[in-house]
Amino acid sequence: MRQVAIVGVGMTKFGKSEKTLIEMGAEAAMEAINGSNLKPKDIQGLFVGCGATVVEENQTIIGGFLADDLGIAGIPAPRIESACSSGSWAVAIASMLVASGHFDTVLAVGVERQTVLSTEFNTRMMGSGVHSFYESPTGLSFPGVFAMATHLYAHKYGIPLKRLKDCLAKVAIKNHKNAAKNPKAQFQKEITMENYYNSMMVASPLQLYDCSPISDGGSAVVITTADIAKKLVSKPVHLIGVGYSSSGSLCGQKDFTRVKARETSAKIAYNMAGTTPKEVDVAELHDCFTMAEILAYEGLGFFEPGEGYKAVERGDTEIGGKIPCNPCGGLKAKGHPTGATGPAQVYEIVKQIRGECGPRQVDGAKIGITDTMGGSFAAIVTLILKKGW
Amino acid sequence: MRQVAIVGVGMTKFGKSEKTLIEMGAEAAMEAINGSNLKPKDIQGLFVGCGATVVEENQTIIGGFLADDLGIAGIPAPRIESACSSGSWAVAIASMLVASGHFDTVLAVGVERQTVLSTEFNTRMMGSGVHSFYESPTGLSFPGVFAMATHLYAHKYGIPLKRLKDCLAKVAIKNHKNAAKNPKAQFQKEITMENYYNSMMVASPLQLYDCSPISDGGSAVVITTADIAKKLVSKPVHLIGVGYSSSGSLCGQKDFTRVKARETSAKIAYNMAGTTPKEVDVAELHDCFTMAEILAYEGLGFFEPGEGYKAVERGDTEIGGKIPCNPCGGLKAKGHPTGATGPAQVYEIVKQIRGECGPRQVDGAKIGITDTMGGSFAAIVTLILKKGW
Repeated sequence: MRQVAIVGVGMTKFGKSEKTLIEMGAEAAMEAINGSNLKPKDIQGLFVGCGATVVEENQTIIGGFLADDLGIAGIPAPRIESACSSGSWAVAIASMLVASGHFDTVLAVGVERQTVLSTEFNTRMMGSGVHSFYESPTGLSFPGVFAMATHLYAHKYGIPLKRLKDCLAKVAIKNHKNAAKNPKAQFQKEITMENYYNSMMVASPLQLYDCSPISDGGSAVVITTADIAKKLVSKPVHLIGVGYSSSGSLCGQKDFTRVKARETSAKIAYNMAGTTPKEVDVAELHDCFTMAEILAYEGLGFFEPGEGYKAVERGDTEIGGKIPCNPCGGLKAKGHPTGATGPAQVYEIVKQIRGECGPRQVDGAKIGITDTMGGSFAAIVTLILKKGW
Repeated sequence: MRQVAIVGVGMTKFGKSEKTLIEMGAEAAMEAINGSNLKPKDIQGLFVGCGATVVEENQTIIGGFLADDLGIAGIPAPRIESACSSGSWAVAIASMLVASGHFDTVLAVGVERQTVLSTEFNTRMMGSGVHSFYESPTGLSFPGVFAMATHLYAHKYGIPLKRLKDCLAKVAIKNHKNAAKNPKAQFQKEITMENYYNSMMVASPLQLYDCSPISDGGSAVVITTADIAKKLVSKPVHLIGVGYSSSGSLCGQKDFTRVKARETSAKIAYNMAGTTPKEVDVAELHDCFTMAEILAYEGLGFFEPGEGYKAVERGDTEIGGKIPCNPCGGLKAKGHPTGATGPAQVYEIVKQIRGECGPRQVDGAKIGITDTMGGSFAAIVTLILKKGW
């Protein structure tokens, strides 16, 4: 198996956009291709991660049309869907097919266009990520899932709810603070504890600032072999670990506070990478809700189960802390155009390892990890990246 | 790269079903797993091909839920989407990841549930396979695309339309005749020339019997290495060629009578397989419309461009002819639950090579090919299979 490297990354500004899925995908793709010192014609395959093209633009089979917009009609271009982990699955499959020698240089694009839908329609569309027969009929949607997880976590570990809520607020405040240093983030405004507690209740105990927003955006990653990468760029980043796992519906999951799919996926990725959580310098985690970020700390092995909230209290996951998490602002404040989230996490880790993050730079970052979750803890992809020069 | 083999195939009866996507997928999967002499726990990865889960059941991220229904929650389970070629893309990606050593034994499932939608909604859903900005706004849907191709073909090669229509009728009659011998086909009734010409006009010159139906169905393929296959089954079928290509929107395609993506995809597959069209004994082609079958004869190299219709007149593509095409009844008469179509084509070719097709058996079939098309000639996958014992 060949060592895989990332030579270029791109992303649009996240937020509200007037652009189509293909336009956003192409913008991110061209940034990634240009940054790789390649031309579009060097790309041999395109893997597009998107959650719901057919709802957003009544479009299936988007890959070939995106390739055409890049001037490379004809290349293989399937779409990969796994709800919010669609984009990371696209990166994973693309990287496996480069590692194996099926392709030398491929492009993984993530894209989603959510603001075009009404709030009601978005609620229904996001609700498609829970089980449509066992969960949707109960009225359950994602804020409810993570509200349950929050109550369960507080109960299981005997944490007063007010103390846990203060931690959730701190996660939100940290991620907004980081996003304010990221020109591509949807929200560039810091928030205070007062803003947090004064915001509307969404699903008790989760308030507005516990929730990631509805977003539009595109992101892209150019993947090739480490040997080719050396000739293209001075700072290739190696993809050294790829993990993946799934779960069934919530009613079959024993404990929402321990995401089994994440633990399995992370283990696969760490084993492949030959590394451990202690060696990770920076992480991009799936904070669709603030509570989800704390669960991710634990699932990835940065802190023991039930200890993640204390890490927030200590500031361990802030930039400058023990293990900075979501320096880009995370899904919470950078935005969460679902299919685009995974490659955008890779974008941030690549930029961090290259030392190109300016005011939000994690000093000396050499190894980084991304964690993307689809559905009700139903699909996880873990990617581990390492300085390759 | 390791030689890949198919050890088990399964499919539901195509037609109208009261079952859910997951139920149909699981039914087909269990037939494939049981036929492989495996247990579900031997499956390491699941690749689900489906065009529009979110429209049909407001469900994204179906893979993990299907794995859970099979009792193997936790395995990686992304969905692959490429409109009508979704299922074949799932088989292609699954096979590439087995060839490379990423997985030893995986399952590709295709599934689609269309009859749950109203005719109007189905028209819109199927319309999502054309370009949503360049084609849909013109009112173009698939019958129109293939009606144009029919007129262009007649014009380009100077064929009187009545003569070409007689050929289209013969394709429909052949496929209904074959389907009548296939207990899993949606239509099991032969049709006559009179039935054909008396049927309603859909998009001139295409009439009702030129069109494949709206269908529900599931299909599944178990893929492993040739070495493992030897120990599992007495008749493994080797997957020796995998091809793929895409196109942009119709307005950028020069000649609808020559499907460039198919010619590219077929060339890749024949080269990988080290074989030629002349060596192929049986073919499953993408006859979403009767005209599409004739274009596929030519695109796959069985007949020269402009000669495919004469093959129909001579009966070359009937069972017993020079190159039997769609012995299962094809999309036209077996049914076309879009995502399920590709793995169902593989099902037929595997059964043909194993000699298990009873009254529709192609004598001595050793090499077979499948051809699946997504969108307006926008994505093609070609698979070549060979007797492996």
